[in-house]
Amino acid sequence: MPTASLPATAVIREVGLRDGLQSIQTVLSTERKCRWIREAFAAGQREIEVGSFVPARLLPQLADTAEVLAFAKSLPGLKASVLVPNLRGAEHALQAGADLMILPLSASHAHSLANLRKTPDEVVDQMKQIRAARDASGNTTLIEGGVGTAFGCTLQGEVKPAEVLRLMQALLDAGADCVSLADTVGYADPASVSRLFEQALRIAGDRFCCGHFHDTRGLALANVYAALQLGVGRFDASLAGIGGCPHAPGASGNAATEDLAFMLQACGVHTGIDIEALLALRHQVAGWLEGEATHGTLWRAGLPRTLHPATA
Amino acid sequence: MPTASLPATAVIREVGLRDGLQSIQTVLSTERKCRWIREAFAAGQREIEVGSFVPARLLPQLADTAEVLAFAKSLPGLKASVLVPNLRGAEHALQAGADLMILPLSASHAHSLANLRKTPDEVVDQMKQIRAARDASGNTTLIEGGVGTAFGCTLQGEVKPAEVLRLMQALLDAGADCVSLADTVGYADPASVSRLFEQALRIAGDRFCCGHFHDTRGLALANVYAALQLGVGRFDASLAGIGGCPHAPGASGNAATEDLAFMLQACGVHTGIDIEALLALRHQVAGWLEGEATHGTLWRAGLPRTLHPATA
Repeated sequence: MPTASLPATAVIREVGLRDGLQSIQTVLSTERKCRWIREAFAAGQREIEVGSFVPARLLPQLADTAEVLAFAKSLPGLKASVLVPNLRGAEHALQAGADLMILPLSASHAHSLANLRKTPDEVVDQMKQIRAARDASGNTTLIEGGVGTAFGCTLQGEVKPAEVLRLMQALLDAGADCVSLADTVGYADPASVSRLFEQALRIAGDRFCCGHFHDTRGLALANVYAALQLGVGRFDASLAGIGGCPHAPGASGNAATEDLAFMLQACGVHTGIDIEALLALRHQVAGWLEGEATHGTLWRAGLPRTLHPATA
Repeated sequence: MPTASLPATAVIREVGLRDGLQSIQTVLSTERKCRWIREAFAAGQREIEVGSFVPARLLPQLADTAEVLAFAKSLPGLKASVLVPNLRGAEHALQAGADLMILPLSASHAHSLANLRKTPDEVVDQMKQIRAARDASGNTTLIEGGVGTAFGCTLQGEVKPAEVLRLMQALLDAGADCVSLADTVGYADPASVSRLFEQALRIAGDRFCCGHFHDTRGLALANVYAALQLGVGRFDASLAGIGGCPHAPGASGNAATEDLAFMLQACGVHTGIDIEALLALRHQVAGWLEGEATHGTLWRAGLPRTLHPATA
């Protein structure tokens, strides 16, 4: 097989402030969250998921999402996204002027019922309502449908690719501007990523916007590479790999932003990120999260002497 | 790009007993090493690098290589290999009846001088002598030329691919039965692996036998996947990822055998390894190495519910 051609550029969307912080005990102050966002922006990150519009009693860690979002909006050129579990959350996001809101759908029926208390098709209905609300608001907030447990589920076990793709199509039909796939529990491998993403791209084309991989079993970066080979150009990642898996204490969480930024730059894929600055921020944030499991490898080893800053 | 086709089977060569143990403080007893080999064999591993024929004063951890090798040879169907730094080591390996001996060559001149006290071309001369000694002995021990620092070097920085390939060709011309490439310091990325391995396969064809990746910067499994896509079917790995990098305390070492076995099985590549048995062995060995840095992720998270044992 010939050497794969990779996209010239890729975006790393920082999800540490949402997917990361929601999974750990420590509650970061609004001030520290804003500092994190400011430093990530200074290091070249241009897309950050800043929080989630869920009831504060469910996720007190993210109760200040509106304030954090307001700060993020003050940084010129930063695209700030938020997670919204339902129409009510979406109304908050519209009101707050998020650049993008992500409606998660779990392709695993068992996970969907346990986590969102809705069937996947009820979530598709929510998408319709959210799209109508967005259009009625005259607001430019984009809507992403994020299909999770796309490679299997700790509750249900197997999740059929055909069902994942059916729900992705349904989200697009219901008015999602774009769709993404998430390996919520770290069950994916590069071969299954290659197969599923190829079909997803055939369905969604340019409206396929992002891959979200957890490193629970060490394969996040290999999975990113498999998606990258298909031309996927946006990946979620979390600084210091925070996030974890509630079912496996201490297990790795999201792909670590800094390791992913290194892989992409080493592969000659432009990210706009200054990795040294990102490593300094990682040091800072890891300090705030003392006692929490942090992950990633680059911070220990440092950058290779051979890494050319040309693409940074 | 179409979904990559991967080889149907792949071999994981265990190098924890050599590359792993030589890099850490703890000295395992001969009895524990033999127990490790016996259990790895029971878990389905069929190729194990059991030690190195270097002077005991240099690597006291591996001083019992001859005894460990004798034990390994008692297991029917196990291919036991050893590292040999020079002709003298090769004579020991021939005498002891190793199935395979690996002569390391460092493509980085600076690393070669610092580590082997020879230039790369002097190592090629050693290969000629070792081949002559093997042929004269009437012994069937195979000879592998392992080209290290193939993706760069902490001392020298860049190592030119053309130089790596020239030395690989020289080793083949000097009589190596097969050749391999090693990312000794964790500088490789999947794109550079794809490029270099494609050229290496063009040169060595069926005599290209193995990829050796360190996980120093988290990319070992992504790098394996890139090589796998080219049809490479043998990879070195170390249980619990032991090995490390002397320049970065605590940094990740070799690809972790158990994580690699998982990735391969998940990708549908047959390895013959029983991963549950391997995880039990990992637990045992990690217990022997208390205080040493161990790595890998699967041991915390466990196998996915969706992993089919069909290929095991």
